[in-house]
Amino acid sequence: MKKQPNNKHQYAVILAGGSGTRLWPISREMYPKQLLALTGNKTLIQETFSRIEKIVPKENIYIVTNKQFSIDILLQLKSTGFSHEQLIIEIAQKNTAPAIALASEVIYEKDKDALMLVCPADHLIANDLEFKKSVVGAFARATDGKLITFGIAPDSPSTEYGYIKPKGKINYSTPTSVECFVEKPPKDIAEEYVKKGYLWNAGIFVWSVKTFRSEIKKYLPEVLQALSFMHTDEKKFIKCFSSLSPVSIDTGILEKSKNVEVIRVKFAWKDIGSWKSLYELLEKNEEGNVLNEHALIIDCENSLVYGNSRRATVAIGVCDIVVVDTEDAVLVVHKEETHKIKNAYAELKERNMAQYKEHKTVMRPWGSYTVLEEGVGYKVKKIVVNPHEKLSLQLHHRRSEHWVIIRGTATVTVGEDTRFYGAHQTVDVPVETKHRLENSTSEILEIIEVQSGSYLGEDDIVRFDDMYERNI
Amino acid sequence: MKKQPNNKHQYAVILAGGSGTRLWPISREMYPKQLLALTGNKTLIQETFSRIEKIVPKENIYIVTNKQFSIDILLQLKSTGFSHEQLIIEIAQKNTAPAIALASEVIYEKDKDALMLVCPADHLIANDLEFKKSVVGAFARATDGKLITFGIAPDSPSTEYGYIKPKGKINYSTPTSVECFVEKPPKDIAEEYVKKGYLWNAGIFVWSVKTFRSEIKKYLPEVLQALSFMHTDEKKFIKCFSSLSPVSIDTGILEKSKNVEVIRVKFAWKDIGSWKSLYELLEKNEEGNVLNEHALIIDCENSLVYGNSRRATVAIGVCDIVVVDTEDAVLVVHKEETHKIKNAYAELKERNMAQYKEHKTVMRPWGSYTVLEEGVGYKVKKIVVNPHEKLSLQLHHRRSEHWVIIRGTATVTVGEDTRFYGAHQTVDVPVETKHRLENSTSEILEIIEVQSGSYLGEDDIVRFDDMYERNI
Repeated sequence: MKKQPNNKHQYAVILAGGSGTRLWPISREMYPKQLLALTGNKTLIQETFSRIEKIVPKENIYIVTNKQFSIDILLQLKSTGFSHEQLIIEIAQKNTAPAIALASEVIYEKDKDALMLVCPADHLIANDLEFKKSVVGAFARATDGKLITFGIAPDSPSTEYGYIKPKGKINYSTPTSVECFVEKPPKDIAEEYVKKGYLWNAGIFVWSVKTFRSEIKKYLPEVLQALSFMHTDEKKFIKCFSSLSPVSIDTGILEKSKNVEVIRVKFAWKDIGSWKSLYELLEKNEEGNVLNEHALIIDCENSLVYGNSRRATVAIGVCDIVVVDTEDAVLVVHKEETHKIKNAYAELKERNMAQYKEHKTVMRPWGSYTVLEEGVGYKVKKIVVNPHEKLSLQLHHRRSEHWVIIRGTATVTVGEDTRFYGAHQTVDVPVETKHRLENSTSEILEIIEVQSGSYLGEDDIVRFDDMYERNI
Repeated sequence: MKKQPNNKHQYAVILAGGSGTRLWPISREMYPKQLLALTGNKTLIQETFSRIEKIVPKENIYIVTNKQFSIDILLQLKSTGFSHEQLIIEIAQKNTAPAIALASEVIYEKDKDALMLVCPADHLIANDLEFKKSVVGAFARATDGKLITFGIAPDSPSTEYGYIKPKGKINYSTPTSVECFVEKPPKDIAEEYVKKGYLWNAGIFVWSVKTFRSEIKKYLPEVLQALSFMHTDEKKFIKCFSSLSPVSIDTGILEKSKNVEVIRVKFAWKDIGSWKSLYELLEKNEEGNVLNEHALIIDCENSLVYGNSRRATVAIGVCDIVVVDTEDAVLVVHKEETHKIKNAYAELKERNMAQYKEHKTVMRPWGSYTVLEEGVGYKVKKIVVNPHEKLSLQLHHRRSEHWVIIRGTATVTVGEDTRFYGAHQTVDVPVETKHRLENSTSEILEIIEVQSGSYLGEDDIVRFDDMYERNI
């Protein structure tokens, strides 16, 4: 289908700042759900981007996120041509209303007649064409000064979603006024809601930036006030934005505004809020089990067992259990108790265990590293450098580094000397010595690094030159 | 208490050849239950040795095992003065009857008037003094030509043990003839046995070697025949012994002999045959859970959760579940299904996964090594060398090795050159080069080794000199 010429005022904002803990240990604070491939080969943010670029011009898609995730998002969307100028960095996490208002201001400055779609990065949507139809319909309605929300006809009385009560009966084709929004209900209330024809609140919205701006001005003037300093006084902007009270778009605007309408949409939609809902979504075998190739199970029923390629993951004789084994953590939880993961997560954080925060393999703009072992005075890492990438020119005050090349060819600078090193060769980098590791080939480079010294924190690094513009 | 002068004819044989799989993943084929500390600081074989050396002269204690375990046993009993001459190596695993007969022949050659205690290496016995009393009593009775078995008054209708039916009523003080031995029964039969006063068969026996020899001659003449070549014709001995049919001492001798008596003993006894029985043995918290410090549990009941110091092990909302997390494997099993572990174990073996066989950290006479990572063309190990120990002088045809010393001081020979290396220093060992790693200090030595080459199997090693007399 040819792109319609009239979509140049159509924009999209993908919300990708959430740090989901509910799918721990697969999601981590520094690498949450939107960056993971849960149901296919693409990550959720890749799926979301690909769905939206079929509707609005690619360069009109913005992503709101924080600094940490931005590098990973750029990496994951590299092949789409997504540019870092389309990233909107939240300087503080203030829930959805300030985040969306920030994006709206960025778009408003560019195009006063903009219409915007707001969409979370981490939801599953089954039918891209139906999604497109709904969005196109909503864009048309939004020009009339309406705030359009997307309502999903429930297939179960879920307690994991908020609900929207339409005014009167609703059919698929006509946007309808909203009587009220309700928070995640308990089971019995949810059943009542479903009977009464309430819809799930998908957290997907469409409006014109003009309309949205005037609603923000009316209901959250302090947010618009903070944003007014964005380009005139950075310090003041940071101060004001950081001191805003967190508020969701539902509570802050939608529950108050008189201009809200809901469209009942046709596409299947899920927000994977727990291991239980992921289990329900995925294909099961005859015994009701979901498992990957690395899991070994005997006489289990209605369970999800995810093993890890480097480990033996064995489950025997269990029912309704979720087992998720990763390189550095294992979760065993009853399917009906998955909401308690947040408590375990808080406890891991309290104990200052790395497992709440990062994966064992940490993604970097140039590749990745995995800590294989650490102890008093030493740390062992496997480092993967992607083709044509290089680490920053750097030095460490308190550690020496010893590299063994195990695959590919490294271009190594130590002091003033730059050389090539191939497999089986070794390099010693003394303390206080400038050095750089580079892969100038088109093959993967892998090295084993043994750090040794009195202090081995990642913060003992002085960067002199960094192609990824990280702190120098 | 002074040692009685009349115990010089008293001997003990500890059976330590079993390769328990039922406590996987803590026990492995190459490192079974008897080598593990399950309930205290000492390993089961250390506990057993210490219990027996209070009864018979230390130098009269023999251990029957296989070649693989012998090194670990010598290491674990180093401080007791146990000598490798007291090890009896089974050249083939033929179940208990041939193993005990082998030990009996060794003792018979040394002392025709010997009395022998036979005892498994991996049982728990609560009261060493009561055990001693029972053994001393049995030795006295054994001089009268009896085969004495130890019977335990059951505290539950266990289905994991065999039972002994005494002839008539039995009290603690008097040895009683045995009517029959019965195999591990199903639950309902076990309950009947307990009601009828059957005793658990502890697998502990006392007899004179003369009596035992004549019973072997009568019931298993082919075993005595094979043993007759032990010193005269090694080849024939190996051939005959290896072709024996496996047979247990119960089936082969005790169920047939007319001279068997049972003593009802007073000490508490357990053979930890499963995770379930280990759970039952250990102290539980208010919720009925057994856990170690590395486990994080929320709302669990009647479960055993063993975490690992290097991992996050989280269990939430489960009942009657056993979770055992190790560095390279995790087991999740319902407490009533632990007998199915053998099926999982067989499957791991079938898939040729290292986890059935060895632990990630492998004990060696000189210390230990841990494989941190391996991939095509490389392997990374942490190597710990104990004080005053050294690895063999060796070379590898197909791999180079790169060492970084992370703790202690290494004495390293590469080619003709021997030097000291301290922390942060590195050593490269090229292929086809003789080398040796030694710790000549009284502190632990730790190094990281990166192997790189076309073939990295442990069998690419040529040993020139080995202080532990391993294959050269």
